[in-house]
Amino acid sequence: MEISVPAPIEAHFVAGELVTAIAQDATTNEVLMLAWMNREALSLTIATGKATYWSRSRSSLWVKGESSGNSQEVVSIYFDCDGDAILLKVHQTGAACHTGDRTCFHNSLGPVAGR
Amino acid sequence: MEISVPAPIEAHFVAGELVTAIAQDATTNEVLMLAWMNREALSLTIATGKATYWSRSRSSLWVKGESSGNSQEVVSIYFDCDGDAILLKVHQTGAACHTGDRTCFHNSLGPVAGR
Repeated sequence: MEISVPAPIEAHFVAGELVTAIAQDATTNEVLMLAWMNREALSLTIATGKATYWSRSRSSLWVKGESSGNSQEVVSIYFDCDGDAILLKVHQTGAACHTGDRTCFHNSLGPVAGR
Repeated sequence: MEISVPAPIEAHFVAGELVTAIAQDATTNEVLMLAWMNREALSLTIATGKATYWSRSRSSLWVKGESSGNSQEVVSIYFDCDGDAILLKVHQTGAACHTGDRTCFHNSLGPVAGR
């Protein structure tokens, strides 16, 4: 399936680069995880409505929840001003994190100056 | 100033890698931008409470808002399960995006299957 990718994003794919993808809960606005996409991952995400990423460690496409069942139904997609980052608003089934936590960002880095 | 960085993050710095940093509005939970950090950028962010990134294009530290005035006061910091992504909850002064938009993610990618 041929999907037209906006030029600022396509430029990164042409250069052999991946783009970062942030998954955000469409209801609570909680940031759930960060992953990577190539052109095929993005095209499949748009065409199927299921968040699909590129695994850098396994060098393969990865339909989120394919093995765990914790899939992400994509509601809407945005991209940033320089076209190298994508924001997915999703309905998350179960936990986004492989640890079983709702979000991958469950670790606090500790106090910040002035707080 | 010496800041102790959690081991999962430190491992990436030791390997010469940057970590991605997502800035999220602490009040509205809107995702504002995505940038990069090295150890010094992260240490300065913690030590000053002002979001500080590493500019890959300029190869230099970049205190957000230093020239534009659109600074980010950091409320809290989280990191993800594999330590290569950081989530900053911030109070954003003015626009996060250099275009003058509130968020860098102001471009819709268009409709998604089933929507």
